Amino acid sequence: MSLINLSNELALGIDIGGTNTKFGIVNHRGEILSKETLKTTDYEDVEDFVDALHSKIKPLLKNFEVGKNFKGIGIGAPNANFYNGTIEHAPNLNWKGIIPFAEMITKKFGYSCKITNDANAAALGEMMYGAAKGMQDFIMITLGTGVGSGIIANGQLIYGHDGFAGELGHTIVKPNGREHWSTGSHGCLEAYASATGIAITAKKLRAEFPNSMLNEFHEDDISSATVHHCAVKGDATAIEVFRYTGQILGEALANFVMFSSPEAILLFGGVIKAGNFLIEPTKMHMEHNLLPIFRGKVKLIFSELDEADAAILGASALVW
Amino acid sequence: MSLINLSNELALGIDIGGTNTKFGIVNHRGEILSKETLKTTDYEDVEDFVDALHSKIKPLLKNFEVGKNFKGIGIGAPNANFYNGTIEHAPNLNWKGIIPFAEMITKKFGYSCKITNDANAAALGEMMYGAAKGMQDFIMITLGTGVGSGIIANGQLIYGHDGFAGELGHTIVKPNGREHWSTGSHGCLEAYASATGIAITAKKLRAEFPNSMLNEFHEDDISSATVHHCAVKGDATAIEVFRYTGQILGEALANFVMFSSPEAILLFGGVIKAGNFLIEPTKMHMEHNLLPIFRGKVKLIFSELDEADAAILGASALVW
Repeated sequence: MSLINLSNELALGIDIGGTNTKFGIVNHRGEILSKETLKTTDYEDVEDFVDALHSKIKPLLKNFEVGKNFKGIGIGAPNANFYNGTIEHAPNLNWKGIIPFAEMITKKFGYSCKITNDANAAALGEMMYGAAKGMQDFIMITLGTGVGSGIIANGQLIYGHDGFAGELGHTIVKPNGREHWSTGSHGCLEAYASATGIAITAKKLRAEFPNSMLNEFHEDDISSATVHHCAVKGDATAIEVFRYTGQILGEALANFVMFSSPEAILLFGGVIKAGNFLIEPTKMHMEHNLLPIFRGKVKLIFSELDEADAAILGASALVW
Repeated sequence: MSLINLSNELALGIDIGGTNTKFGIVNHRGEILSKETLKTTDYEDVEDFVDALHSKIKPLLKNFEVGKNFKGIGIGAPNANFYNGTIEHAPNLNWKGIIPFAEMITKKFGYSCKITNDANAAALGEMMYGAAKGMQDFIMITLGTGVGSGIIANGQLIYGHDGFAGELGHTIVKPNGREHWSTGSHGCLEAYASATGIAITAKKLRAEFPNSMLNEFHEDDISSATVHHCAVKGDATAIEVFRYTGQILGEALANFVMFSSPEAILLFGGVIKAGNFLIEPTKMHMEHNLLPIFRGKVKLIFSELDEADAAILGASALVW
């Protein structure tokens, strides 16, 4: 008999985002041995998406299956339900209704599959391999196409009664505020603090300030990245876009802190490339809205994991 | 050797409210053998309050100490910290700063003492003896002088990193809204949905509607109870007070649901005497603000425990 070699145990981690799907073969130490991506938006039909995933992943698996202890597939996806293995009514995906995604994957791949909310997966990844290592209480906020969240309390992921806990992007932060492009709700956090929301804010503000450098870009090119580009060059309107976003995000974070009193809030996703333009106003407005007993206590930190890797690692963490 | 008789194990449960303090001797079955009250607001100094508590409780204890297995003292109090045994900066109490309350009680009474947020205690009471028996995920909202909350997720109380989780009354529900009389924050849930907040709303609305029956009462007599009295008589302004309160409460509850996805929200405290005048608009606005995946799933229920008893039972539950 020999000792179990943990690096010999493998899992497939798949992160399904509103725009891109990332996947990789991961060992128990959190090393990604092979990874690739697929454009989520290219597939109107979920069956086609699963077929495309399989075609891309099969050759990867072939390289690793022989002589290894392949443990299964972990998936992070928007509105995924850990208990049921489903993706249900995801506002940021093409596939509507209730999709038995874990079952579809198991059928196609022949391996057991666990699925959870993409932000829950990211939280698990941070807790196992990232900035939240050793933390018992933290909140993960993912700022990408949408705004997701994963909540760890008492050292455990909060799934809630039905598996859907942690939809903080859809909490209302400005009653009667901006209409959400997909849910139709008014004033939810995602409508402002996602990459999509930031682009909307930027388009509104540049119309008000004709001298802004933001007006040099084509409508379709206005994104969190272009706003950052202009902010770095000192454009006051671009800076104001992030200040406004940070104010709303900070107010929302204060409410979340008063819910579960975390040691830290981890921010993750494309939007955090805005750095201090976003983080400073966020921190200021979070602190301002907290009860005194919470002030100065909560660390507001960026994910330490490489963005492309964290989601894959998190998804694979479901398998262990 | 004889079997342990659980009804022979006793605890003292103390519930410190913004207005009244209730306490009682409780056995393990949740039977209150003796109880009394004290007016919290009568004591400017916390030392005087502890002395007064001791004078009132000593005779009660005398009757039960002999031959019984007295297990200790459990306390529910606003802004109490389970980890530190302190009451810290409670906006609704006279005693400011950080008070080592559990230590003071142990010193005075000679028994070990555990303390938690009053609403956490109420949640424990409901989970052990009340409407939440057997539930793994629920949120307790106490609507009294203030608005408190206790959150149970994965079958456990959420204390958070520092022991202060569950201050939902201080989450901001109307940015730039009504100023809180004590914290100075603008638009928190407590400023609207507490008994104090309801009285403020009633005073504002009766000034706008001179024909309202609410104008028959003296300023000092306007309370959640008098508003209820007028609503029952069909006064449209009084009914509007509860509808407005229910709208804000419902919007807040929707956000809480999207955080921890509870099986139920339990409402508790003096304000719930308003019954359907409050609960119907609350339910409507909660449902309206939820993502479709949460709709029609969350039970909104009133506490089943006698109000006076629930807080004592909950506090005593800390001891077991």
